[in-house]
Amino acid sequence: MPDPTDLTRNAVDVLPAGRLEEQLAAGRPLRVKLGIDPTTPDIHLGHTVVLEKLREFQLAGHQVVLIVGDFTARVGDPSGRSAQRPLPSPEEIEANAATYQEQAFKVLDRERTEVRFNSEWLRMAPEGLLGLLAQTTVARLIERDDFQKRLAAGAPIAALELLYPLLQGYDSVAVEADVEIGGTDQKFNLLFGRDIQAAYGQPPQSILTMPILVGTDGERKMSKSLGNYVGVTEPAEEMFGKTMRIPDEAMPDYYRLVLGAEPPAGAPPNEAKRALARGVVERFHDAGAATAAEEHFDRLFVERGVPDEVEELGLGPYLDNGGSAVHMPRLLGDAFEISSSEARRLIAQGGVKLDGEPIPAGSLDVAAAELDGRVLQVGKRRFRRLRATPGAD
Amino acid sequence: MPDPTDLTRNAVDVLPAGRLEEQLAAGRPLRVKLGIDPTTPDIHLGHTVVLEKLREFQLAGHQVVLIVGDFTARVGDPSGRSAQRPLPSPEEIEANAATYQEQAFKVLDRERTEVRFNSEWLRMAPEGLLGLLAQTTVARLIERDDFQKRLAAGAPIAALELLYPLLQGYDSVAVEADVEIGGTDQKFNLLFGRDIQAAYGQPPQSILTMPILVGTDGERKMSKSLGNYVGVTEPAEEMFGKTMRIPDEAMPDYYRLVLGAEPPAGAPPNEAKRALARGVVERFHDAGAATAAEEHFDRLFVERGVPDEVEELGLGPYLDNGGSAVHMPRLLGDAFEISSSEARRLIAQGGVKLDGEPIPAGSLDVAAAELDGRVLQVGKRRFRRLRATPGAD
Repeated sequence: MPDPTDLTRNAVDVLPAGRLEEQLAAGRPLRVKLGIDPTTPDIHLGHTVVLEKLREFQLAGHQVVLIVGDFTARVGDPSGRSAQRPLPSPEEIEANAATYQEQAFKVLDRERTEVRFNSEWLRMAPEGLLGLLAQTTVARLIERDDFQKRLAAGAPIAALELLYPLLQGYDSVAVEADVEIGGTDQKFNLLFGRDIQAAYGQPPQSILTMPILVGTDGERKMSKSLGNYVGVTEPAEEMFGKTMRIPDEAMPDYYRLVLGAEPPAGAPPNEAKRALARGVVERFHDAGAATAAEEHFDRLFVERGVPDEVEELGLGPYLDNGGSAVHMPRLLGDAFEISSSEARRLIAQGGVKLDGEPIPAGSLDVAAAELDGRVLQVGKRRFRRLRATPGAD
Repeated sequence: MPDPTDLTRNAVDVLPAGRLEEQLAAGRPLRVKLGIDPTTPDIHLGHTVVLEKLREFQLAGHQVVLIVGDFTARVGDPSGRSAQRPLPSPEEIEANAATYQEQAFKVLDRERTEVRFNSEWLRMAPEGLLGLLAQTTVARLIERDDFQKRLAAGAPIAALELLYPLLQGYDSVAVEADVEIGGTDQKFNLLFGRDIQAAYGQPPQSILTMPILVGTDGERKMSKSLGNYVGVTEPAEEMFGKTMRIPDEAMPDYYRLVLGAEPPAGAPPNEAKRALARGVVERFHDAGAATAAEEHFDRLFVERGVPDEVEELGLGPYLDNGGSAVHMPRLLGDAFEISSSEARRLIAQGGVKLDGEPIPAGSLDVAAAELDGRVLQVGKRRFRRLRATPGAD
């Protein structure tokens, strides 16, 4: 069994070596920082890996400082990016920032969480920004792996992206962070925060990084934009169904990082996955919702004869130019080796099903988001599980 | 004879090719920008090369916009720098900015000059600065020669220095510049201004660069920090004397770039140099002052028997640790092959002269700035012209 009092459990980096131990040994409640930029409307299971770690610090008596990056969201975190990402509009940021806190409190203890918006201190006079820029060198800002890869590939780095670690680091100064927690992709930013604190005369924070949770596709980082995520506010049935779709190999990580538990030893994969899906729904809804979600799942799949193991089919080749919709006759034709006219006839007759439910007659073009992860069925025994093929990062 | 109506006379770059001609042909008065950062208290002859060019545009009916870079002075222009320069204090910037305008009007026509301080628009809200940074890439910002040299040498580039061309470029947007003029070392910044104007929806300015005036040492760019400058507000006698000290080879450039004239053909170098020195004093004082300055010069040098051609001696090896003072007994010992005690005796007896004037008894340590360019004399016939050996740029 894992030791629930070991705050470094599951962590990847705890730096500098020995520092967190010293801080904990001092006995004073620590200020533990997490920054989240409200670039998407929902917190998903990937975010909860670090939230879960913060909750462990709270249980040990420490103070969490949750920074909603309403200012940094306008700059854009280049971490792990191979190109500058499109920035959300100020209106989107404001709307997302409003919903983020409530979602975070599905994991965090509200009483031991200080919520701050970083526009509070980052909307500084120009002199302040100049002073911040004066604290570092270009070489230090571009040494990070993601930038070096882009420079080597001749891919552009927006000047704005350089600013990100400086601003993020200044957040640590503003809240006087003792510890900062983030995903492993945040390691550069978190370490940079130490430099900025030192430049402003503060003792540098220690940093702790957590593994990145793989998405429901079992391959790439969980991300809204890749469509492979489970949002913490999703309905219980949706959450259960999505969790049931993760590959078996991803299960141990989901157990450890989302539920903070070890996977059950010796259980058949399908049983273990059901227990995981129930656990996830319990975590973000409650036990009753978990039971109801599992019953719903059984109705859909078991009673309708959808097998657990189904051959997969990528949606990529069937997406329209915008990448948002799929032309069903063509997809059905390829998937089941039938003619396009036969496919149209089957749709019209209610002979094509998604997760066991007939698709409405006339559904020739269907949104890709409604297909991803679902089981497409023709007749009684022909199935394909549909998978979105992610576009550019 | 040069054509006084040719506004590109003496220019090094006029870009893009043909653009300035089109602008002039359109007949509308052009807005001609010059930016000067008030990093030192005085405008010197080096600055007047571009001021002189602006005056020519004024004479042709165009509007000069003189931008006092009170904000950009706090960022620091990296142009031609092998290391970040120390930034002046806000108080120094304010004091220098106040005196700059009056000094510029020693060349420019006040009626056709719009003076603007760039803090007016650069003290923008943080969103404005972010928007500006979003206009360019890191590759574009570091492609400039000076940065490439530093990166290759592993020498630091402060993150702050990256900002300079963006801010300087935004000045062109703020004043809607049609043309920008600067030294050849400003070519990158000036061209960058075109990009920024285009990004903000303005027709990009044309640019015109002028040669860099060599200092009185005949070797390096005229610069306050190198001590090889002639300030436009210096007393007439000082101005005359300093001009007389420039090497013969530098004369044609001084004639063309400072006086806007061709050097006299066939005149003996010493005569040509006297005419140049008179011309410089006339330019910044008046004809009477020029005559008086020449008479003073003659009293000092000719009547006191100081020859025009004197062997030079670099001060470098004799500077104290701070680089500001020279220990005279050691310098005299080396220069004239006498003992240190003999040198002390000569000083005590008034037997050591600078530009023909005895140095006071007890002057064992003398400020380097008071020695540079002057003629040191022991006895009647032993002379050395002292030259500061510049330190780091």
